[in-house]
Amino acid sequence: MTSAWLLPEHIADVLPAQARRIEELRRQLLDMARAYGCELVMPPLLEYLDSLLSGTGQALDLKTFKLVDQLSGRTLGVRADTTPQVARIDAHLLNRQGLTRLCYCGPVLHTRPDGLHATREPLQFGAEIYGHAGMEADLEVQELALDALRLAGLRGVTLDLGDARLVTGVLEGVDLEPKRLSALIAALAGKDAAELNALTQDLPPAAREGLKALLGLYGGLSVLDEARRVLPDTALIRAALSDLQWLAAHLTQTHPEVRLGFDLADLRGYAYYSGVRFALYAEGCSDAVARGGRYDEVGAVFGRKRPAVGFSLDLKALVALSPSDPLRAAIRAPWGEESSLRAAIRRLREQGETVVCVLPGHEHEHDEFNCDRELVSAGGQWVVRAQ
Amino acid sequence: MTSAWLLPEHIADVLPAQARRIEELRRQLLDMARAYGCELVMPPLLEYLDSLLSGTGQALDLKTFKLVDQLSGRTLGVRADTTPQVARIDAHLLNRQGLTRLCYCGPVLHTRPDGLHATREPLQFGAEIYGHAGMEADLEVQELALDALRLAGLRGVTLDLGDARLVTGVLEGVDLEPKRLSALIAALAGKDAAELNALTQDLPPAAREGLKALLGLYGGLSVLDEARRVLPDTALIRAALSDLQWLAAHLTQTHPEVRLGFDLADLRGYAYYSGVRFALYAEGCSDAVARGGRYDEVGAVFGRKRPAVGFSLDLKALVALSPSDPLRAAIRAPWGEESSLRAAIRRLREQGETVVCVLPGHEHEHDEFNCDRELVSAGGQWVVRAQ
Repeated sequence: MTSAWLLPEHIADVLPAQARRIEELRRQLLDMARAYGCELVMPPLLEYLDSLLSGTGQALDLKTFKLVDQLSGRTLGVRADTTPQVARIDAHLLNRQGLTRLCYCGPVLHTRPDGLHATREPLQFGAEIYGHAGMEADLEVQELALDALRLAGLRGVTLDLGDARLVTGVLEGVDLEPKRLSALIAALAGKDAAELNALTQDLPPAAREGLKALLGLYGGLSVLDEARRVLPDTALIRAALSDLQWLAAHLTQTHPEVRLGFDLADLRGYAYYSGVRFALYAEGCSDAVARGGRYDEVGAVFGRKRPAVGFSLDLKALVALSPSDPLRAAIRAPWGEESSLRAAIRRLREQGETVVCVLPGHEHEHDEFNCDRELVSAGGQWVVRAQ
Repeated sequence: MTSAWLLPEHIADVLPAQARRIEELRRQLLDMARAYGCELVMPPLLEYLDSLLSGTGQALDLKTFKLVDQLSGRTLGVRADTTPQVARIDAHLLNRQGLTRLCYCGPVLHTRPDGLHATREPLQFGAEIYGHAGMEADLEVQELALDALRLAGLRGVTLDLGDARLVTGVLEGVDLEPKRLSALIAALAGKDAAELNALTQDLPPAAREGLKALLGLYGGLSVLDEARRVLPDTALIRAALSDLQWLAAHLTQTHPEVRLGFDLADLRGYAYYSGVRFALYAEGCSDAVARGGRYDEVGAVFGRKRPAVGFSLDLKALVALSPSDPLRAAIRAPWGEESSLRAAIRRLREQGETVVCVLPGHEHEHDEFNCDRELVSAGGQWVVRAQ
């Protein structure tokens, strides 16, 4: 049994110092989402696999742990992403006509880690707005995501914008098999000009030139002007660029401290997003801290296509980047059977104090709390005094 | 895709009204545990099966979902109980010499439900004290559990006490194969005198009489006196009865509103508990709301046997029993691009208010928040006024 305590790779215990910070930030983020009018939902960890993966594409399938339901004999999946579940709740359970804002916070499991140091058990926090097709919802979601990073104390934040409609617009009228499309998307995301060239040999010249142009469209706000010059002038592309421009104008005004970036060839989550997509980066981390965007199609498989926009992040990763805050001070108290002592301890705890009771025989142990005061008997009264 | 939204049996979404109450109670319970000096830990949902099931017995094995780790090829289990994980953390990761108080709150999954209406995804909250063999730790854990029920607003609480040492004491010197022992335990738990009689035909008379006597030992405090008369007078049994007496005396004094009960034949979790065990019942529910006890052996398989006592409960079940509290009032605000409006909304949210922004075109929709005020422009200022 020597290995009984080893954990699987990319799976870890969260110990007290880290757990305390995760719990504090978790509350701050949920309170923030609530302040925006988001209602909390808690979808289950387990669903029938076909429901869990409805309309989400192959990438999520590969990430999802499968197991067999003893009650039904059917295959279940452990959720690898909460977003499709929340879309299902909006479509079927709430089934409201109007605007609905929802948020969630819970673990997801991945069969393989996203990166070299990534956990296979992220604690996913996210918020979604259903029922509004206008850019106001996209803006609100981006502000929510920026607030989350602000609450976590992250500095040097960059908001990176893109739009799934650009590649759809460039490929308008071109019929591509899914495999070829995936390869194209991968080449664009990896900025692999040679691969893109090879893959587009037989495409119509306009599509080919458009895809090549996308490769170079990253940088600051001027990218949008450049895109208007080099991309085909279609209704879809015009709408996408105009929406990006509108968002940029607002964010520059309301969040002057946030750096805006554009990467029009970054199509991560292409199978998923249908409009503006965004990623948030912060000082000291190479990968995005939060990702989001518009995915109006996601409810369609549940029989109810509604406008939808949202974002999510991994709270464990967010806490790892956020500055540590000091441990709250606590009170040491002796153990005793007197009812006056027990009443004094109970009262302090009800006031929100941490009272560490020293059980008999443990008087000389070090405890992990920052006890700066102690409960002592003075003149027949139990009083708190500095230690 | 008509069935895409059906969930597996005994698996459910938690919708906003319920999720809000679970989240509120979750915070209260974690704050309460912290006030006792419990440090929060977050063990993973997934572990290698042999580690997850170390020393826990067959019942937990049957309850545990198994899956294959693509990274190692080994079998993983999704936790069905967090307690053994927390014991592992105490034994190996923290590895402290002194007293350690830990708490946790997270989902567990069960292959089969515990009862007709039970969820297969309880939200398990629990607290544990390691490193103290004395009854003071048992008492503290019972007070923690009682506080949890008080915070949930439960009425008519009964604390039911028992002790695993009683059956061990009665069977001292009798060598029973595990299967026979399980059958005996089941007969005792089910108060099945006929079955018990059949199973004990060939046992020594003292053991046989002792087991029969256990069957009738349930009721109020007088059960302890009765037990002293009818059970064998061994050191182990004397210690168990004296510990139960000590706990009863304290609880009667500190929690006069709680009804005390004894069921000395109830050995649920026998494979697990090594001393006093307890269960909490409340008005309106047939099954226990919380269970706990002493399980000094649990760390042994991790190479470090420490005194341990703790309890756990399912927050979903607890919330279902607790009275509903009213929805906090919110403020309705118009959507607009003016920076003064946006600043006013941001300020209100930072003050902890819920501000539901009415996105363009949704002015006549009903929202799910209890908006009793609205943000309006008056004399060039944005002010909150009653709706």
